[in-house]
Order: sequence, then structure tokens, then C-alpha cells
Amino acid sequence: MKTQSENFLYDSKIDFEDVGGGLSRQMMGYNTELMMVKVKFETGGIGSIHQHTHSQCTFIDSGLFEITINGEKKILKAGDGFFVEPNAPHGAVCLEAGLLIDTFSPMRKDFL
Amino acid sequence: MKTQSENFLYDSKIDFEDVGGGLSRQMMGYNTELMMVKVKFETGGIGSIHQHTHSQCTFIDSGLFEITINGEKKILKAGDGFFVEPNAPHGAVCLEAGLLIDTFSPMRKDFL
Repeated sequence: MKTQSENFLYDSKIDFEDVGGGLSRQMMGYNTELMMVKVKFETGGIGSIHQHTHSQCTFIDSGLFEITINGEKKILKAGDGFFVEPNAPHGAVCLEAGLLIDTFSPMRKDFL
Repeated sequence: MKTQSENFLYDSKIDFEDVGGGLSRQMMGYNTELMMVKVKFETGGIGSIHQHTHSQCTFIDSGLFEITINGEKKILKAGDGFFVEPNAPHGAVCLEAGLLIDTFSPMRKDFL
């Protein structure tokens, strides 16, 4: 498994992988401690409630999302973001198509 | 020092802090392991070459930037990103005003 990305990451040169349910994912930078991933949502796309031991910070680049963290639901739009502490149940419902910038610590080995 | 942010982070509710040199910074989510920060650049704004022990991933939300990492310079635009391994010298020159989404592991205590 590669444990460190290139330094420079070009949107035009990295494919989005269809991960089902109206979502596709593009790997950005990472090493073992930190990972950044784009997740593109179609309208109606759902990131089901799940949890993981990684800390997560997400930036809403575009679109409109209903985000649930620890059972609390909020509507977030472009420019907003959210933080998920380790093991906190969280999920996303896409109300208007858009892009999330997910970051994790440590890396999501399961994405490589 | 607060060591964990709120879960939900609203662009309209968090001030940008002027950090000089045409740059301003808005704190987004964080805990001790992970931190996300927006950095707004005016055209001509410079993030001077510096280094730190933190790993860093950055997403170019808007604008045009000349990014230097380990002495290599590249032009990056909205949608692109970059990864900086611990202790790698890096810097940014803003060619067209825009916004970077910087993430770090561990947290940048010096930002709090």
C-alpha cells in the first residue's frame, strides 16, 4: 500500500471512482496521519449513518446537505463545514448536488 | 485551550481574522489530531516559505496560486490541491484572489 501521495494534486488528472448510491470519490493528498478526499454527490445521494475511529473534518464546497452527527440534523451549504470526533455516528443526505471535501486523521487505509 | 470544535460550522457565524500580508483566516473544525482552517488571500498575498512538523493537505477552493513545496513551483487552480509532508518547506503566492482550505495533523496549537 502506498502511504504517501504526490505533493501536487490536479483535479483534471485524478479520476473520480463511483462508490454507489449517487456518490463518487477522488483521492487527494495523504500520508499515514492525514488524508483528503473529494466526495461528489448527486441530488438524493446518501452517505448512510456510519462511524469510524478516525477524526473527520469536512468542507462543503458546493451543494446543499442535511448532515447528521450524534443524532443531530443540520442543513449545511457551500462554505460551511462540520467536525466528527472519533466513533461519532454521522451521515449525509444530499439535497442539491455538490461536493464535499472530507479530511481524516489518521489516513483511511480502507480507501486505498 | 479548547481542544475540540463544535460539530457544525457555519461560514456566516465564524469571523475571519486578518493575519497580515493580504491573508485572513477562519477556524473550522478541529480536535487534537486534525484541524481545518480557511485562508483567504487577496491577489498578491504571500504565504512565505515555512515549515512545520505537522502534515498538511490543502484544497484550492477558488483563485489561482503559485505553490512551492521542497523548492518545486507549480500553478494550482480551483479544484486542485497539495500535500505537504512534515518538515517540508512550502509557501504560496496568490496570483488571483481566492480561498484555500488548509488541513493539518496534528492540530495547529499555535492557531488557537
